Amino acid sequence: MIDTETRLKIADLLSRYGELIDADRLEDWLDLFTDEATYRIVPRENEEQDLPLPYMYCDSKKMLVDRVNSLRRANVYNFHYDRHLISGLTVEHADDGAYLVGANYAVFQTTHEGETSIFSVGRYEDLIVEEDGDLLFKDKLVVPDTGSVPRLLSTPL
Amino acid sequence: MIDTETRLKIADLLSRYGELIDADRLEDWLDLFTDEATYRIVPRENEEQDLPLPYMYCDSKKMLVDRVNSLRRANVYNFHYDRHLISGLTVEHADDGAYLVGANYAVFQTTHEGETSIFSVGRYEDLIVEEDGDLLFKDKLVVPDTGSVPRLLSTPL
Amino acid sequence: MIDTETRLKIADLLSRYGELIDADRLEDWLDLFTDEATYRIVPRENEEQDLPLPYMYCDSKKMLVDRVNSLRRANVYNFHYDRHLISGLTVEHADDGAYLVGANYAVFQTTHEGETSIFSVGRYEDLIVEEDGDLLFKDKLVVPDTGSVPRLLSTPL
Repeated sequence: MIDTETRLKIADLLSRYGELIDADRLEDWLDLFTDEATYRIVPRENEEQDLPLPYMYCDSKKMLVDRVNSLRRANVYNFHYDRHLISGLTVEHADDGAYLVGANYAVFQTTHEGETSIFSVGRYEDLIVEEDGDLLFKDKLVVPDTGSVPRLLSTPL
Repeated sequence: MIDTETRLKIADLLSRYGELIDADRLEDWLDLFTDEATYRIVPRENEEQDLPLPYMYCDSKKMLVDRVNSLRRANVYNFHYDRHLISGLTVEHADDGAYLVGANYAVFQTTHEGETSIFSVGRYEDLIVEEDGDLLFKDKLVVPDTGSVPRLLSTPL
Repeated sequence: MIDTETRLKIADLLSRYGELIDADRLEDWLDLFTDEATYRIVPRENEEQDLPLPYMYCDSKKMLVDRVNSLRRANVYNFHYDRHLISGLTVEHADDGAYLVGANYAVFQTTHEGETSIFSVGRYEDLIVEEDGDLLFKDKLVVPDTGSVPRLLSTPL
């Protein structure tokens, strides 16, 4: 059983994760990861067949920083708003005081013209650790049901 | 007022409910119900007019087991991924120590080609009881807004 | 840090907010606001450019009451069901014991024919206060990503 305070802090971390992406505050979003954090997007089909071929794989926060920087340069022509709905939190103890956290997500995108559509739905399977009193992502695994590969490059999930 | 621990356990039960359907672990999903549990899908229009004509009605866990078995045989040709978003939990005390639990849901389906669409949105109105320390569904009432009758046979909501 | 009980009561208030709109119990929904409450819908584009030009602006509960009354008269020909998914709650202390509460929302609408579509996604930025032991909205700010102006008149978000 996870204590209530930890659980609510984990819920906060996920809320913050979605909020910061949606507000396009990606530089602040990076602060939710540990320095050695990994961030992976593995399509559900691959994950279920144990083919760990990811759409995207960042093996450190530095690589995530690079990615955000290149999004800042590249994304001028791909304007949209993101909106995350995250629910169904499950929390278990993992090794070394870490937490294994699952949640379902749906990300909606809205175009400049105000049209909203489903961009991606899927599941998060995260490893969350405590550092200096803060809970942070040590591994973020995104498992999309939706096969929207081409657009995946334009936004974190 | 419901105590915090119970409330979080109810949230866990609903999270688990969605997680297990979405992972197609329907045999484990059955463990979330009491032996005498009922599972009903009643379209919103009928429910509001007090016409309790359900799309589906299982009056025991045994009947749910049968249903899962027949899904296992029938569903070969209807491949899709499900994804539940469940939010807006409301919890009240009911008789005999049970809990009356409401929540809104959206279920998305993704085809083999990776296309995601809204399959059903609606509300859960559940009766949840404690058995041997576990919280379980004694009655699961699904009230869909969406009128997707034909496909309803292919997946639990 | 917000104490657990307050936090859960805030989550309850938001759940109730969605539940009452979705059940078309708008008269009860009004009870979630203080007498001097403001309710505003400001498109995200305007909000980000600090152009506080709202789609809708009610500067008191009385004005909200009027609005509900006119919806009751006008809405005969615009039948639909609403369904709110609200997640990603963030809570901070504001002045005078109030709480600054953020959350992401998605509202789905279902037509008489049973077709469900995305009506609006966006964010709530609310000011919530305690009055006589109840938590109530003192300011509800809805910031839609979706640009669905015309239909906005038909339902609260």
